[in-house]
Order: sequence, then C-alpha cells, then structure tokens
Amino acid sequence: MGQYYLALDIGGTKTTGAVFTIDGDLLDNFTYQVASRTFEGEEAVYQNIKGVLDELINRFQLDKKDILGIGVGAPGPLDSKNGIIIHAPLMGWKNFPIVQRLSEDFGLKVALDNDGNLGALAEFSVGVAKGISNMMYMTISTGCGAGLIMNSMLVHGFHDGAGEIGHMSIYPKGRKCPCGGLGCLEMYASGTAINRQINEDMQSGRIQSKAFEIASNSNEELTGKVLMRAASLGDEYALQIYEQEGYYLGIGLSNIINLLDPEVIVLGGGVTKAKDFFHNSMISTIKERTIQIFDEKTIRYSILNDQVVLFGAFQLIKNKIEEGK
Amino acid sequence: MGQYYLALDIGGTKTTGAVFTIDGDLLDNFTYQVASRTFEGEEAVYQNIKGVLDELINRFQLDKKDILGIGVGAPGPLDSKNGIIIHAPLMGWKNFPIVQRLSEDFGLKVALDNDGNLGALAEFSVGVAKGISNMMYMTISTGCGAGLIMNSMLVHGFHDGAGEIGHMSIYPKGRKCPCGGLGCLEMYASGTAINRQINEDMQSGRIQSKAFEIASNSNEELTGKVLMRAASLGDEYALQIYEQEGYYLGIGLSNIINLLDPEVIVLGGGVTKAKDFFHNSMISTIKERTIQIFDEKTIRYSILNDQVVLFGAFQLIKNKIEEGK
Repeated sequence: MGQYYLALDIGGTKTTGAVFTIDGDLLDNFTYQVASRTFEGEEAVYQNIKGVLDELINRFQLDKKDILGIGVGAPGPLDSKNGIIIHAPLMGWKNFPIVQRLSEDFGLKVALDNDGNLGALAEFSVGVAKGISNMMYMTISTGCGAGLIMNSMLVHGFHDGAGEIGHMSIYPKGRKCPCGGLGCLEMYASGTAINRQINEDMQSGRIQSKAFEIASNSNEELTGKVLMRAASLGDEYALQIYEQEGYYLGIGLSNIINLLDPEVIVLGGGVTKAKDFFHNSMISTIKERTIQIFDEKTIRYSILNDQVVLFGAFQLIKNKIEEGK
Repeated sequence: MGQYYLALDIGGTKTTGAVFTIDGDLLDNFTYQVASRTFEGEEAVYQNIKGVLDELINRFQLDKKDILGIGVGAPGPLDSKNGIIIHAPLMGWKNFPIVQRLSEDFGLKVALDNDGNLGALAEFSVGVAKGISNMMYMTISTGCGAGLIMNSMLVHGFHDGAGEIGHMSIYPKGRKCPCGGLGCLEMYASGTAINRQINEDMQSGRIQSKAFEIASNSNEELTGKVLMRAASLGDEYALQIYEQEGYYLGIGLSNIINLLDPEVIVLGGGVTKAKDFFHNSMISTIKERTIQIFDEKTIRYSILNDQVVLFGAFQLIKNKIEEGK
C-alpha cells in the first residue's frame, strides 16, 4: 500500500476532508463534508470534524501506519505555530487546540494554517503560480482574503494576521464594515457586497434588469448566480455591476502591485466565476494606476477552485514532515 | 590599519558618501556631499559621484587594500541584481551600470539597492527595528516610499518595484498624481502635499494662521518648517494640518497593518520632525481601522535620520561580502 496525507478544510459552515497520495494527487477526487456548526458546544463541533477524517480512513480502508500526517486549513484568527484556533464564532470555538487534539486522537503529525495562506501555498506549489517566488492568492467570495508568498516563503506577519486584503480601506469615509473600519474593500468587491447592492437596487424599483425578472419569476434569491445569468444575456445593469466589481478589484490590486510588485496574483473564490464580466474593467483600472508597466499575465485565475485549501493543507503537512520539523 | 566599507547615498539633487568601520561605525561621522545633477551629461554626473569616494579615500588616507567594498543606495527604478540604475531623470541617467563602473574604477565589490529597501535594511540591522523579522520602513519627505522586510528578508518584488507605498490610492477618485494614478497617498501625506496645501490656503486669504504671518514677516518660503514653528506656538490651523497628516498616514498604515501584520513600522524622513503634532491622530486612526488589536509600540521613529540610507548601503555590501556572493 502507498503512503497518504489527510487534509481538512474547516469552514464556518462546513468542513471538507480529502486524502492525498504522497505525490499530491487528491485520491479519487473524493471529498467528504459535514456541517461545522453544531449547537451542542465546542466538543461536538470537534467530534463532527474528527468524523470527517474517520470517514475518509474507513472509505479508503487506510491503515494508520500508511498515513503520514494531517494538514488543516481554517479561517483566522489562529495561531499557526501553536496549532490553536483563536476564535471561530460560528463554531463556538475559543482558543481551541485543534492540532493537539487531532494529533492525540490519530497519533499523527498535524499542521495548521489559515485558508488564505493555504490558498497561496497551493497555487505556489501546484497551481497557476507554481514556483513563483513573489505571488499573492486572493479569494473573492463572502469576504475577500489573501495569502502572500514573498521570497518563496509564506508571509504570516507578527500575529498570523497577514493577508487581510478585504480590510484595505479604499474609501476612508465609505461604508461601515463590521470590522470597525470604513470603506473596506470587501464592502464593495465581495460576493456579499454584490448581493447587497443588487437587492437594494431591485427593492428601489427604479432600475430595470433581467436579473430582477429572473429572480421574481423563479422565486430564486437574487444573488450573483442570477446576476451572472442576466449578464450572459447581455443585461446592461448586470454588466454594469460587474464592471464596477472590476473597478473595485482593480483599485485594491493596483495598491498591492505598487506595494509588493508580485510576479503573479491568483484570483479564486466564487465571484471569479463571473471573471468574463469583470476582467477587462479590472485590468484597465490596474493599468491606469500602477507605477510600473503592468503585464496582464500577472493576473491569473485559480483552477484549484473549491479544493485550493485542501491542496494547501496537504502541502503544508508534507513540507513540515519533509523538513523534519 | 583597520578595514573599511564605503557607502554612497545617491539622490536626485545631492549625493552623500561615508566611511564605515567593519563594525558599522560611521567614521568620524563625516559625510561628504556633491550635487548629483549636472548639465554636462551622464558621464559628468558619474564623475561627480565618483569624486565623493575619491574625496573620502583622501580625507581618511585610506589604503585601497583596506577597503572591503562599496554599498550604493539610489532612488528607483533600478535593477539591484545587475547593478543598473534604470531611470534617474534628474541626473540624465538611463540604464546606467553604476555597479560595473564603480567596480572597475575602484577594483572593489559594489552592491546597489534602492533607498527604501536600504532604509528598511538599516533599521532592521542597527536601527529601532533591529532583528525584527517582519517590519516596514517608511520615509515621508518629498514623496512617500517604503522598504519591507518579511521573514527577515528584503522584499524586492518581481521588478525591484516593491515599496511604492506613496502610490497606494486612498481616494480612488482623488487628486491626480504624476504617476498617472488618482488619490495616491503621497498626494495627501508627503511634505510636498503639505506644502501645496498650506500655500493654497494662504493664497486663498480666507484662513488665519501664525504660519502665514511668520512666512510673510520673515520673507521665508511657507513650508513645513514654518508650519511646525506655528504648531509649536499652538496655532490652530497648523495643528489641524498636522492632525490631517496623521489621519492620512493612519489610513495608509492601517492598510499595511491589515495586509502585512508587521511587528514594527519605522517612520523616517523630514515630515517626521513634526511627529509630536501628527502622532496621536495617526495612532487613533490606525486603532479605528485595524482588525487586530493594535499595539502602539508597532510604530517607531527612525533615529538614523538622514544617514539611514548610508547605514543601509553599508549593511548591504557587508552582507554581500560576508555571504561570499
């Protein structure tokens, strides 16, 4: 039998696990999900998540001696060195020692990092920024987050807090963000921001859009999915919302390019499904605002998609074990 | 006799040189300056700058065999790996191979980097961020620039372009910047921006300020120097300009803190002479806008001041020679 790594992508609402071969193949492309959130306390949440690994071990009839380690991705704030999830409000976790618990329960080496960093690590290791020593991974979904690799090393920052691109203020007197800041990028460019905008516009009754018709007729929620459908039909309003999205992303990214001069920026997350509609506006905004001549090839789109954190978690534990740490 | 390093700080208008002992002491604290700019072509500019080193060698009666190498700092854009100054419009240089020229003329190893990076290297090596593995140095003077050290390594970026914090857009539809962007931080927070603001306000005739009186009475130019004097006298307008300065800096720095989570940020450059007047407003802006709890000790002020680039240039060549590159 071969040797394997287990990977976990712990999210606020669901947790996904996967088995990787030592060569980095996601075994049978099988992932197993559970709801992260339970209302029975932090131990129940943990047991649920541990169950994902048990299920994978059973499903593939893995022998524990063939498993080399477990890589874990989770949203911050967390302490990657000590393997502690500092605060996960949706799951009721506070200072939860996830690495120690999994390590005791499975008798394996376990490594933890946040999902933004693991996204960067995945793209740097096997994705569209493979081997690029200065790169950023940015996810645009419910919120906006990022992971940075500079000089071929992950940038964790002093408190494991690096990568909060979503809280770059692009309008210092703009929309109030739950973080306490004003005009944070994710108040404009995230999927949540798009959803809020289009729902407000529909309710105002002053704007015509196929998106509103689709949502009304199908009794579907008015979200990015519906908006994309309208954009595909050439709906002017939908196209204009995505043009605006490209503009906001362009502002945020040109700030990053001026500050860090990355060779590659990889964009991922649900909103990038609409890349055909926002890409041009994003690129032209960046071109207008960067000091150096901007090469469009800097911007790439993830092809690891929903599995990017799993790939990063695999790479994290693999690196750790191979470096003998 | 001991062993020495030479250091050059090439600026758009003047060039300063210094001799360092192998232990990093600036010899006799002596620096020698020439105007960088001449109107006699790129070779004349070079000879002028080379003359700084000749003068230092004479002044200290150094024997060439006792000199270990030459470190050079210059404004970007430059190519640090190949030792080329790509464009220095004030000096008429285009793709000038400064490292090769100095190396041939003095028969010594020479290393080049930009002044923002050397500022960071100096603060990281001997300054107020000594040994801090994640830090930023920011200079606030004519413009705003920065150097970054992440995981104890300088962040050069892909085209040696990292550190352009002055061109972070804080008002996407704000003031047009010569770089082509809109609302760049240095259009608000630099010494140039302050000077423009106060001169406009004086000319408008609608605002009262001791600064305007001082400038009129003394026939002095209305600059930060005069504004600081007015602020020291409790002048309301001057204090308000500095409060605004702190606000702009706070916006820029909170974006950096959210993105990079540095342990220390060192501020230098002429505008920091007025730190007593902008510090509180800067700190409270940062506190309002950072995700993590912000520790005021993150912000420090350079004590290397005008010599920060010289110290960085010394450290650059010392590191290069000691690493045997």
